[in-house]
Amino acid sequence: MTFTAGQIAEYLRGTVEGDPQISVHDFSKIEDGKPGTLTFLANPKYINYIYNCKADVVLVNKDFVPEKPIRATLIRVDNAYESLAVLMNLVSNGKPRKTGISSLSAIDATAEIGKDAYIGPFVHIGSKVKIGNKASIHGNVSIADNTVIGDNVLIYPGVCIYEDTVIGNNCTIHANAVIGSDGFGFAPTEEGTYKKIPQTGNVVIEDDVEIGANTTVDRATLSSTIIRKGVKIDNLVQIAHNVEVGEDSVIASQTGIAGSSKIGKRVMLGGQVGISGHVSIADGTILGAKAGLAASIKTPGQIYSGYPAVPINIFRRSYVVNKNLPVLQKTINELIKKVGELEKIIESKS
Amino acid sequence: MTFTAGQIAEYLRGTVEGDPQISVHDFSKIEDGKPGTLTFLANPKYINYIYNCKADVVLVNKDFVPEKPIRATLIRVDNAYESLAVLMNLVSNGKPRKTGISSLSAIDATAEIGKDAYIGPFVHIGSKVKIGNKASIHGNVSIADNTVIGDNVLIYPGVCIYEDTVIGNNCTIHANAVIGSDGFGFAPTEEGTYKKIPQTGNVVIEDDVEIGANTTVDRATLSSTIIRKGVKIDNLVQIAHNVEVGEDSVIASQTGIAGSSKIGKRVMLGGQVGISGHVSIADGTILGAKAGLAASIKTPGQIYSGYPAVPINIFRRSYVVNKNLPVLQKTINELIKKVGELEKIIESKS
Amino acid sequence: MTFTAGQIAEYLRGTVEGDPQISVHDFSKIEDGKPGTLTFLANPKYINYIYNCKADVVLVNKDFVPEKPIRATLIRVDNAYESLAVLMNLVSNGKPRKTGISSLSAIDATAEIGKDAYIGPFVHIGSKVKIGNKASIHGNVSIADNTVIGDNVLIYPGVCIYEDTVIGNNCTIHANAVIGSDGFGFAPTEEGTYKKIPQTGNVVIEDDVEIGANTTVDRATLSSTIIRKGVKIDNLVQIAHNVEVGEDSVIASQTGIAGSSKIGKRVMLGGQVGISGHVSIADGTILGAKAGLAASIKTPGQIYSGYPAVPINIFRRSYVVNKNLPVLQKTINELIKKVGELEKIIESKS
Repeated sequence: MTFTAGQIAEYLRGTVEGDPQISVHDFSKIEDGKPGTLTFLANPKYINYIYNCKADVVLVNKDFVPEKPIRATLIRVDNAYESLAVLMNLVSNGKPRKTGISSLSAIDATAEIGKDAYIGPFVHIGSKVKIGNKASIHGNVSIADNTVIGDNVLIYPGVCIYEDTVIGNNCTIHANAVIGSDGFGFAPTEEGTYKKIPQTGNVVIEDDVEIGANTTVDRATLSSTIIRKGVKIDNLVQIAHNVEVGEDSVIASQTGIAGSSKIGKRVMLGGQVGISGHVSIADGTILGAKAGLAASIKTPGQIYSGYPAVPINIFRRSYVVNKNLPVLQKTINELIKKVGELEKIIESKS
Repeated sequence: MTFTAGQIAEYLRGTVEGDPQISVHDFSKIEDGKPGTLTFLANPKYINYIYNCKADVVLVNKDFVPEKPIRATLIRVDNAYESLAVLMNLVSNGKPRKTGISSLSAIDATAEIGKDAYIGPFVHIGSKVKIGNKASIHGNVSIADNTVIGDNVLIYPGVCIYEDTVIGNNCTIHANAVIGSDGFGFAPTEEGTYKKIPQTGNVVIEDDVEIGANTTVDRATLSSTIIRKGVKIDNLVQIAHNVEVGEDSVIASQTGIAGSSKIGKRVMLGGQVGISGHVSIADGTILGAKAGLAASIKTPGQIYSGYPAVPINIFRRSYVVNKNLPVLQKTINELIKKVGELEKIIESKS
Repeated sequence: MTFTAGQIAEYLRGTVEGDPQISVHDFSKIEDGKPGTLTFLANPKYINYIYNCKADVVLVNKDFVPEKPIRATLIRVDNAYESLAVLMNLVSNGKPRKTGISSLSAIDATAEIGKDAYIGPFVHIGSKVKIGNKASIHGNVSIADNTVIGDNVLIYPGVCIYEDTVIGNNCTIHANAVIGSDGFGFAPTEEGTYKKIPQTGNVVIEDDVEIGANTTVDRATLSSTIIRKGVKIDNLVQIAHNVEVGEDSVIASQTGIAGSSKIGKRVMLGGQVGISGHVSIADGTILGAKAGLAASIKTPGQIYSGYPAVPINIFRRSYVVNKNLPVLQKTINELIKKVGELEKIIESKS
């Protein structure tokens, strides 16, 4: 597929700066842009690459002001990163998807498979499972009894889904993720051992959710663990039993949320964040990477960081003083000495 | 299954407060209790829900003192959470389990499968493997040569067990966990590359152990990595080569224990804890979430937190001062100024 | 296989101290050495075990100076740990490997399988995949279209490899690892939702790389995520899209590297380290366990620790003062009091 800068600008409702007739057939990164390709500038860290970039077309934000001449043709748009997404989806959606049910799968007679679904080899589907239209279930996936999966869902190889799980439409689950495993619930006994609390609830995943590779979402003890519409979860994340993640929240890799905590809407959790059990986080909260949160956040839209997590401005100031602690200690020692000397002078005068 | 409050109280050796004839057929959470169900109050955070709870029966600890009238019938027991576990297990054990060996499995001719075991589709079982009675091996599991698995063991889909592993009775291993993978052992060479140390030991898991989804337990370089009786391990935990975890210890999600470390009995590790290699931790130690421990803990029953981990009282005090650091810095600056002024006054007088 | 101390010393170019005729047939750990076995002393923490060790032969570094008599025969070598690796590999390589293609695998007609390769049951291999000579692909592995895998590669059960992945020779990938999953790329829209950025790049893994169980390596958005020659990665590690890990770097368990970051050669990352996106780390850098790095490190060969990560000497000094913070606070309070008293004295005199 080849398009001219002019065609692309028209599609994106952007404006061309340079040659509207120049054509591109692929994408490239701005740091190694190639002739015949389109690239983009969104992160200001990469701004210097644009002046020598060999890509023929560059998507930029409309307020971008170059400091030197640029060889490439520019397409100015409201949001270069979002426009890139639009173009890449256009190309990506053009690719054919697999269909058909592999003869090497094991599907219970009571399961219902939607129209145009793909079921790969070595997929095991339990009793009374329902799979939506145009769903793609890749090889070596296990889907246990009574699970319901929506339309256009894409499940990569090795994913395990426990019984009674509900998954909405247009969700993507990456390889070896586990959905619906038992919550970590054990009651201590008098003898110092633990008695398992059966986890009899389930997991509910709403529409447009993406879940990363090797991520785990535990089923509820009672009722449901819920991942709301539009949530995006990265790899190796842990969502414990009875957690609820609000709409359009984003969770980066290796973050863990302990049991029964409630994450608001449009919350952003950085990588390796830890959230204690039974806390709630207000809408629009941002937690910096590696933050550890043990108490609820009630005011929406705040940024927290650190362990234990504190508002970002306190974190930054504490960090500066903290780095300076050895100097501070020295200052205090000198001060003690000086005060001691003053004391002696005063004593000698009395 | 429907039971009256009186029947349940008798079974649990508790006492009824309210209507002993009222009957329930399901469980619910206290924050959304439903008529016809039984719920429980164990965590004091949820105490306010009990006064408006619509569940008909609530398990409470015998020392619970209500501050307002409660509509529901109460059953007072020694330990509400443990009693809930007893009841839920009663219901859960009543459910039928699958049996039979799938014709779509690949079982080596030299393997021995116990009585009433279940082997799901696409399970691969290697040579000389022994599987106990009433074991359930779900779909897409791989069990390598010479592994021995006890009675009543439950292995969820996608689990990989490397050769020579030994697993006791009544263990549960959740989906996509890996048992017996190579320890991370490489000897640096003079050229700056690494030479692999073959990991020729194995993993031994004793009775009554539960292991979470996507958790990894590495085999020993020599001898065995050992998980003792009754240990409970959450999801995404890393147990490195030659580690030993003592009886009835509990390890929360995303915690990692580096090579050759020895965890005592009844130790509790919070989520995202990191423990260095070659350290030992005394019986009954508690490490708070995200703690990082680099040295051994020799006194039993202590609580540690922080990174590097320190006793919890030191952690708390340091935290308070730490949060206050910018104020402390200001105080010191003012003190320096004041001392300077005093100095001038004294000088001017001499 | 039985060898005498003399034979082993000759093979390793070491020197015997004791009985060159004594023979061993297995390895053991120094803390529970058994007669008829060979053990080693590399970590000084274990030095006390050597004096009562029941193993018949101990590999030691040539500069080892015993403080008491030792019963065992010693073999002195340049590097005891590396020599152990040599011996263990000798034994390990002597074991037979499986060959043949399981009739229970699903291999696309356009795939090419190398000479003497092993393909286990329930392996799914997509179209145009190439598998090298003597490669071992264990059961339940999924390898998607257009992937190229080199010679002598060893892939354990449950591994998922997405399309277009390139893997060099002599690599090992442990169970349930995921290679080539989508990078975590979403463009925020005006409505507060997220639009997926298709991840159209791939993963390139060079020769002699080892990747741990349940580790995830994401494909690039554009171009390639690259793991260079000789890199060793432990379990549960996250490598995000467009990351590059330099030659012979070593990454311990549960560490995460965010998108587009560039790790130099011979870098060592401890366990649970977190590295932000778009940073670069100079050759030979060492990051201590649990370090959190948000900025690039430009000077090679430095050791960093802490969160946020700082050079190790600053980390250590800050830690000492930090632990002492409550005392420091008290000191300052006393100082304030004393200065107040001095002030009064001076005032009373004027």
